[in-house]
Amino acid sequence: MPQQIRIALDAMGGDHGPSVVVPGAAVALAQHPDATFILFGDQAKIDPLLAAHPQLKDACRLVHTDVAVRMDDKPSQALRNGRWKSSMWLAIDAVKKGDADVAISAGNTGALMAMAKFNLRMLPGIERPAIAGLWPTLKGSCIVLDLGASIGADAESLVAMAVMGTAMSRVLFHLDRPTVGLLNIGVEEAKGLEAVREAGRILREEPLPHLDYVGFVEGDDIGRGKADVVVTEGFAGNIALKTAEGTAKQMAAWVREALSGSIAAQVGAFLAQQGLRALKDRMDPRRFNGGPFLGLNGIAIKSHGGTDALGFASAIEVGYDMAESRVVERLASDLDALHGKLGEPQQARGSS
Amino acid sequence: MPQQIRIALDAMGGDHGPSVVVPGAAVALAQHPDATFILFGDQAKIDPLLAAHPQLKDACRLVHTDVAVRMDDKPSQALRNGRWKSSMWLAIDAVKKGDADVAISAGNTGALMAMAKFNLRMLPGIERPAIAGLWPTLKGSCIVLDLGASIGADAESLVAMAVMGTAMSRVLFHLDRPTVGLLNIGVEEAKGLEAVREAGRILREEPLPHLDYVGFVEGDDIGRGKADVVVTEGFAGNIALKTAEGTAKQMAAWVREALSGSIAAQVGAFLAQQGLRALKDRMDPRRFNGGPFLGLNGIAIKSHGGTDALGFASAIEVGYDMAESRVVERLASDLDALHGKLGEPQQARGSS
Repeated sequence: MPQQIRIALDAMGGDHGPSVVVPGAAVALAQHPDATFILFGDQAKIDPLLAAHPQLKDACRLVHTDVAVRMDDKPSQALRNGRWKSSMWLAIDAVKKGDADVAISAGNTGALMAMAKFNLRMLPGIERPAIAGLWPTLKGSCIVLDLGASIGADAESLVAMAVMGTAMSRVLFHLDRPTVGLLNIGVEEAKGLEAVREAGRILREEPLPHLDYVGFVEGDDIGRGKADVVVTEGFAGNIALKTAEGTAKQMAAWVREALSGSIAAQVGAFLAQQGLRALKDRMDPRRFNGGPFLGLNGIAIKSHGGTDALGFASAIEVGYDMAESRVVERLASDLDALHGKLGEPQQARGSS
Repeated sequence: MPQQIRIALDAMGGDHGPSVVVPGAAVALAQHPDATFILFGDQAKIDPLLAAHPQLKDACRLVHTDVAVRMDDKPSQALRNGRWKSSMWLAIDAVKKGDADVAISAGNTGALMAMAKFNLRMLPGIERPAIAGLWPTLKGSCIVLDLGASIGADAESLVAMAVMGTAMSRVLFHLDRPTVGLLNIGVEEAKGLEAVREAGRILREEPLPHLDYVGFVEGDDIGRGKADVVVTEGFAGNIALKTAEGTAKQMAAWVREALSGSIAAQVGAFLAQQGLRALKDRMDPRRFNGGPFLGLNGIAIKSHGGTDALGFASAIEVGYDMAESRVVERLASDLDALHGKLGEPQQARGSS
């Protein structure tokens, strides 16, 4: 029998707070009627919204707090003012205490990261969380990490990210042995950042059971779907993500312009509306919302701060899938295997 | 009276060699009938192609060499085997010797960089060249650098790139005081790489006459046209560029699919063909081909290796404009001013 998934929500996070979180949870509940929710936040603001969603009201528990982390708080400020009592902290703490299987917030990324790290702690051998994200490709979707949790990464961190992204890919896409690429500025082994080259060497020479390393990938290989998991440090990852989002918006604006420039074009757009609607759905950033922090001893998901209820529901969906598949246990055991492997001396490994 | 621009071409560079370079030069000559060309490469391959372009044949001089740098040569190999005698070296050397105003090659980037640096030398105070590129935006075009000439950059190099990108923007877009942004993973002053933050501080506190510093920009701000010049180190810059190219291709594939899925959509696409053709032109990567190496004591332009004649002509166009406007002299004097400014002690600067 499948376990019941319990979802903790920071109802005050994001640009729109409970007015997005509550209807978002209602959408997610419709998808997963067995899920239950704990909402943390300002009761006076949440109650009227819950009144409009009776099913959700029945499936959730509301924990009042009048402390909310602000979007522009620095992580240290957020920890100082919001620890023990903010809606963000309490959502994470519910996971820590075992009251929830996953925490989701659309709030301040740096604060969420700091609180999750501080409270949930890292898995053994992992220093800092990585933000993973779903990326639409010509073949479907891939997972890209790190999207900006930290700047720079050594070879071991990149390999650990490869393992974590692989575990996530296996869970979300039910792939047996996902392909993994390291983002670089050329595909030749001698190219690029030293840490990336060294991570490539490790992945090549130390094959891991659940991971099919395909070598370096370049920026244009991500959308091509060359790998199921693309690994990079957070600076380049964040720039790649934002640049892709920007380019997609730019193209969408140009397509709209192309299809409205003349009466003929407008009639054409009308005739093609079905395909264009499918295109719009396909590109809809809300479908790809929800970035898990990987490497934590628990599941915390960052939703885009500006998303709407549908987007927030996507983030909940990611959290639901990760909780249901016990991804943290899988991550922990895969990382264990990795660290065992990398720790063993060359000879012993050869003869085993 | 405008000077006559003399253009040196590595006829053997790129995936297609003279079969692209020769017709590309013919296109450029049609744009600029006053230009003259020196073609370096294999006479047996070039002569038959020139026969098809009599105007070009009259406006060019062919210098035979049977040595060509290969696309997969390492820079050191290329220098060892190709110095003094390869078509790439000779094109650069023509600039060095004053026989040409600009050298253009679609060949091996690393080799071109190494040869250009070795032969032309850097401008005072610049350690390594930066590759600049034109980037289509919602407002027109911007210039992004460095697109992958080197990995990592300290604050001073980023500021020098800002100055060089500005000079290029003034030349190509006739802007009086281009806006300049530093690519980062957030717009707050405390965010991102140390070198980027420090470069931001310098640009903020040491205003430069020709440059309007607008702060940090994120990946999605490039296509939005938030700055005329976007500065970053080469690893992130290359990943941003390739990711944008990949996303544009992906979207184009999806638009094609949306407009061919049904008879109605196909009729619609037919009716909208004028707008769609304009869209295709607008996105045409050939229009944005041609990346100058900035910081050299001379002009060397890298064309995309896989481009066609139209694309190669765009690279020539960039070189023509840069030569015509004497951009190297401007660069040298702007960099001089920068280094004078940054070199002066705080007090002296304040009282001047």
